[in-house]
Amino acid sequence: MAMPSNVTVSADYPVPETMKAWVLGSPGELTLVDKAVPTPKKAEVLVRIDAVAICATDFEIIDHGPPAMIQGGEPFNKNFTPGHEYMGTVVALGPGVDEFKIGERVTVEIHAGCGQCKRCRQGMYTSCHNYGKNYGDVDKGHRANGFTTDGGFCEYQVNNINTLIHVDDNMSDEEATLVVTAGTSMYGLTELGGLVAGESVVVSGPGPIGLLGAAVAKALGAQPVILTGTRDNRLEIGKKLGADHVINVRNEDPVAKVRELTGGKGVDYVVECSGAPNAVNEAAQMLNRGGKICLAAFPSEAVPVDVAYLVRNNIYVYGIRGEGKTATHRAEAFMRQKRFDATLIHTHTFSMRELPEALRYARERIEDAIKVVVRNDHAARQVEAAE
Amino acid sequence: MAMPSNVTVSADYPVPETMKAWVLGSPGELTLVDKAVPTPKKAEVLVRIDAVAICATDFEIIDHGPPAMIQGGEPFNKNFTPGHEYMGTVVALGPGVDEFKIGERVTVEIHAGCGQCKRCRQGMYTSCHNYGKNYGDVDKGHRANGFTTDGGFCEYQVNNINTLIHVDDNMSDEEATLVVTAGTSMYGLTELGGLVAGESVVVSGPGPIGLLGAAVAKALGAQPVILTGTRDNRLEIGKKLGADHVINVRNEDPVAKVRELTGGKGVDYVVECSGAPNAVNEAAQMLNRGGKICLAAFPSEAVPVDVAYLVRNNIYVYGIRGEGKTATHRAEAFMRQKRFDATLIHTHTFSMRELPEALRYARERIEDAIKVVVRNDHAARQVEAAE
Amino acid sequence: MAMPSNVTVSADYPVPETMKAWVLGSPGELTLVDKAVPTPKKAEVLVRIDAVAICATDFEIIDHGPPAMIQGGEPFNKNFTPGHEYMGTVVALGPGVDEFKIGERVTVEIHAGCGQCKRCRQGMYTSCHNYGKNYGDVDKGHRANGFTTDGGFCEYQVNNINTLIHVDDNMSDEEATLVVTAGTSMYGLTELGGLVAGESVVVSGPGPIGLLGAAVAKALGAQPVILTGTRDNRLEIGKKLGADHVINVRNEDPVAKVRELTGGKGVDYVVECSGAPNAVNEAAQMLNRGGKICLAAFPSEAVPVDVAYLVRNNIYVYGIRGEGKTATHRAEAFMRQKRFDATLIHTHTFSMRELPEALRYARERIEDAIKVVVRNDHAARQVEAAE
Amino acid sequence: MAMPSNVTVSADYPVPETMKAWVLGSPGELTLVDKAVPTPKKAEVLVRIDAVAICATDFEIIDHGPPAMIQGGEPFNKNFTPGHEYMGTVVALGPGVDEFKIGERVTVEIHAGCGQCKRCRQGMYTSCHNYGKNYGDVDKGHRANGFTTDGGFCEYQVNNINTLIHVDDNMSDEEATLVVTAGTSMYGLTELGGLVAGESVVVSGPGPIGLLGAAVAKALGAQPVILTGTRDNRLEIGKKLGADHVINVRNEDPVAKVRELTGGKGVDYVVECSGAPNAVNEAAQMLNRGGKICLAAFPSEAVPVDVAYLVRNNIYVYGIRGEGKTATHRAEAFMRQKRFDATLIHTHTFSMRELPEALRYARERIEDAIKVVVRNDHAARQVEAAE
Repeated sequence: MAMPSNVTVSADYPVPETMKAWVLGSPGELTLVDKAVPTPKKAEVLVRIDAVAICATDFEIIDHGPPAMIQGGEPFNKNFTPGHEYMGTVVALGPGVDEFKIGERVTVEIHAGCGQCKRCRQGMYTSCHNYGKNYGDVDKGHRANGFTTDGGFCEYQVNNINTLIHVDDNMSDEEATLVVTAGTSMYGLTELGGLVAGESVVVSGPGPIGLLGAAVAKALGAQPVILTGTRDNRLEIGKKLGADHVINVRNEDPVAKVRELTGGKGVDYVVECSGAPNAVNEAAQMLNRGGKICLAAFPSEAVPVDVAYLVRNNIYVYGIRGEGKTATHRAEAFMRQKRFDATLIHTHTFSMRELPEALRYARERIEDAIKVVVRNDHAARQVEAAE
Repeated sequence: MAMPSNVTVSADYPVPETMKAWVLGSPGELTLVDKAVPTPKKAEVLVRIDAVAICATDFEIIDHGPPAMIQGGEPFNKNFTPGHEYMGTVVALGPGVDEFKIGERVTVEIHAGCGQCKRCRQGMYTSCHNYGKNYGDVDKGHRANGFTTDGGFCEYQVNNINTLIHVDDNMSDEEATLVVTAGTSMYGLTELGGLVAGESVVVSGPGPIGLLGAAVAKALGAQPVILTGTRDNRLEIGKKLGADHVINVRNEDPVAKVRELTGGKGVDYVVECSGAPNAVNEAAQMLNRGGKICLAAFPSEAVPVDVAYLVRNNIYVYGIRGEGKTATHRAEAFMRQKRFDATLIHTHTFSMRELPEALRYARERIEDAIKVVVRNDHAARQVEAAE
Repeated sequence: MAMPSNVTVSADYPVPETMKAWVLGSPGELTLVDKAVPTPKKAEVLVRIDAVAICATDFEIIDHGPPAMIQGGEPFNKNFTPGHEYMGTVVALGPGVDEFKIGERVTVEIHAGCGQCKRCRQGMYTSCHNYGKNYGDVDKGHRANGFTTDGGFCEYQVNNINTLIHVDDNMSDEEATLVVTAGTSMYGLTELGGLVAGESVVVSGPGPIGLLGAAVAKALGAQPVILTGTRDNRLEIGKKLGADHVINVRNEDPVAKVRELTGGKGVDYVVECSGAPNAVNEAAQMLNRGGKICLAAFPSEAVPVDVAYLVRNNIYVYGIRGEGKTATHRAEAFMRQKRFDATLIHTHTFSMRELPEALRYARERIEDAIKVVVRNDHAARQVEAAE
Repeated sequence: MAMPSNVTVSADYPVPETMKAWVLGSPGELTLVDKAVPTPKKAEVLVRIDAVAICATDFEIIDHGPPAMIQGGEPFNKNFTPGHEYMGTVVALGPGVDEFKIGERVTVEIHAGCGQCKRCRQGMYTSCHNYGKNYGDVDKGHRANGFTTDGGFCEYQVNNINTLIHVDDNMSDEEATLVVTAGTSMYGLTELGGLVAGESVVVSGPGPIGLLGAAVAKALGAQPVILTGTRDNRLEIGKKLGADHVINVRNEDPVAKVRELTGGKGVDYVVECSGAPNAVNEAAQMLNRGGKICLAAFPSEAVPVDVAYLVRNNIYVYGIRGEGKTATHRAEAFMRQKRFDATLIHTHTFSMRELPEALRYARERIEDAIKVVVRNDHAARQVEAAE
């Protein structure tokens, strides 16, 4: 047992010294290697990873590096393990941790802020000014697992307790991996004011964040919730999750249709999850005066924006990153209370050893894949280890 | 005396039946005509207009019509009187008004919301959903004097009491016309959170709103306040009003300079008052993570915006219109307390009869004109009327 | 037909000139009289009252006068009609009203602010500074139907459109009368921050506002929701409405039990609906540091409060009155979406002619009465009138 | 030199191994002893204490123990050093600290939250749920220097960088000790909304927090600022700091006078700094509907409060503890900008060796003492050490 004496462990959950972990070589290259199991420090626990969902940002990281790794440079060929939407079981407690118990099931959010900078002190830890500074002389304690620190495509990972959410027994491992996705949607709705009961909301783009965005908006009481997209099967899932209306933008002008559905008034809020080039302008046109847009997605290049329209109509635009303001906890509460069935977006499961195939399914949307989950079979591994 | 019996008047401030008023003919055409003095209704007073400042939006209205006149169509050849930054003396009270007294000096903000729509009920009356609906069967009571209802390039105008601010004796007529401009700056800083003491702020564009934006930001305790622009004389005025640093963007890269002035960190807030095509992108680059931009100006056409940068850095963008959230009252308080000298931006004075010349000075920035004020000489008029 | 020409009426909903109305004589005296049907003015409609729920405040008004009638004095022997939790059908539109249609079912909130004072301009219309000023020379347009202006214990009443909420076909008349009660609970939770998903909430006092408070807190995702009270039957209804735990304070120490149910931590929020003398102190003791209390009820006399405990624990206390911040609309949205069954608190129905008996049931809690509703039988009245 | 190798020190600021420190024996007993100079850890610096102001809470701690030391029990006979309003010079940097430089002058706020609990994650670090947990197995990293961890009545103290504020050259040591007092006032005004320009504010109680409360309210633009108290000399200082009106409650009914000064309306905000038994009720009576009270002081026992008045008038009450929400930074900004002269409340200076006498002056208000400051003479000590 490799853990130091100030780390609490349990015979019920033996922790090996090494584990199998996927590491990033050159851009796009993932290799399964043996790696030391990390040690939890103050305010950290060691999580045995049970399941990980694949996110579009994983491809971005694997191909190009983290979108916001300001310090520390590129993650390639540095023994870096990506993967950030994971859940698992607490198997070791760092010094002083009593907030979680060994054996407790947890799911994770990504960002642990430094706790010292201006933004962290304001409660905006996803905008931590020490983003990525977690090494050597500039160790400010910021962590973004799977982005700037090792993530979940492996068997064990340390997590700051700030990033952990207890998982109820009534939630499957697969469902638990979706808490952080719903948390991003919740963060967006939080920044839009949160109190959307009875307010009209458009969610544009039925990717995972958009689909769960429709679910969360409805759970919060929004009406109508209107989901726009290009694929009918996704829109149908959106209906099951809580969308009152769906608009296939290939068949209908979404702005005109939104105006029609709202008696000409336009909606109060748009949660933009498509990243389409004209999405900001369309969102603005869908709003009534004083409406608000949350941007949870973005086009890869600068796009023409009708800034005058935003100003003339007193429209506010919120670019959000991650799942700040403890939004995952609110998302988990709704999921625990079965307000919506997030598992509707879980389409495929693979074993961790099959990660490349799982990534291919997710990336190419094979068999209409939405959320693809990879699982560790710890029981099998233990048997294997014993042999 | 033309006022109905439920209107309170005073012999000290006799109200004539007709007045001289500038009215808008075809685009760009202003004519001085005789017009009936309007009658204040419930919650309205009649203001004898003493001084009016000219605003860039006046040119927009005179040339193209109000920017947000959703209903009611164009204002041309309809006996419409523009002009919205005016102050004067209360000379008649509509039924039930006891909030103001006859003889009281007042300055005005522009918007009186309908009081019934969703936004008005939220306190966002500048985003009134009945904007421009103030006529015939669709009279919802919204007023935007000089935009959708008659304004101040005349001798008397009615105003909803919601739009009036008491003017202290220590403030000149000319200074009082600037309250609404400072109010727009204050509204921007209000939406950015208001509590900017000790926070770093860039104001881009040293027009009247930008210059008073620097003044208001400093009055609220911001540090440093950095003003950017292209004209050194304007920037010098900005320094006198409260800017700690100025950047002439013709000589220096403003993004690099802002970073340098803030020890590499970037600022917390940008108040964008230039309307330059690249202003949103530059503002974003000037900010630190989690920073905020207020847009008080805009380019006339859609411009390329790096939306991804906004999202990745959790940047919020607030398009503001007018001077909402009672910001004029806060601006007036600072001006009454002499926290900054708004008269530094008042450069020229003309008589109301010389309005076309005054407009030419303002439009063409003759003799470095910033704020040009036109005045009514009521004493002279009364003598003239008596002859 | 008595309505003036600028009022829109319809043959489908004939409006009589007079109606039966209960009026308040001396304290405690209600008499059924003939009264003129009122005429809707600008921004008002005439509502045919179909059902009215009885509220504890009705007794306060009938016995002592409105709690906050600052101007205008006592309501006794002034032909005043109380009753404020009513719903009905729009039968006439004042000038310019197009927000509602004749024949539309609506329920009401109580307060229409003046729209001019500082609080109304901030969106806090229930704190209108012209509260009660709606007559003669001091007509500021404030209305609080059933408090300072005529209410609903009659057949027809005018309402400012600000106070109307559309009622969906899936909601019964009786359920619709409960929207304003749920709205008060929602207002409390709004002022506590609104985003209570996953947060712990105690509701103390299972009266109508407390019971629907538990329902609204759960609809917003709070967990756990703990309801305290003295009567098991009420607490059982609370469980059905959404309370996760109930505490009968006759059997258990509520502070100790709340601490136990929250793992020793205490809760984040208390919605105090009991008005018990020690309620503020107990609420404070139930909270964790930085927690918040909403006071929706109060003891009739000054009570000892441990102010030091509030300060030392950074506790905030929100006294709320009515159903501000458009909370009724959010409450109606949850009710329309069937998030909870408000009809569980509706126990008795009487005809309007039986109002005194209905009041007796409500006041004395006969047969465990919670919400007692009185109904008008307009069809019968029309037949009667025709005979 | 006792500092470990991962701590940065400088020959310009030699750090001794031991220092003189006052420690608390039995209640009320302070003894000057030799104590080891503490070592800064991650995110901490070592501050050479140059000056300390005495606060009324110091007496509370010395006599009774910290008001909110939930864990860890009483501070008596534990080698505990009180004192919390100190400033000094950074002389050593803990591992990874680059936010401050050796030789930099700093002043401190009291609370460093754990950074992990719900409140810290919301930015409410003064309400940290791990308050006082900073030892042994329950080390959550919370610090409240001078309350639950060693404070400033000594020569050197470690401080979390979260608690440090840079002191400008234009501010004396004595003035710098007052930043945290002004910060408490600023925190109160922050929780009241912050945007008080043009709003009316009463500050009750001209102790240090009240006097600087008047100063901060005026710096933020409030008008009028009304200060109430019992001692004319204090009220006169309040006028110099920014109060527009003062009321000696021995001579005038403060509620009636406040109503008179506000044209009968009452004020928008009360900052209660007196702790008088009837202060909450009087504050409520001074307010207009929808007004807010901040409680920065409290009576030692439960007092009768008219809860009904709070509810009926929609009054909110904010109990505040300490100087949260980074308020010290905003206070320092106003002080650096010389918006008010905080040194007006600094009345006496003693050397650290004379602490008991200094405490006596402060406690007994000898020679009208307001703020009494004790200073270390490090130069003298160095000479002494060299001998």
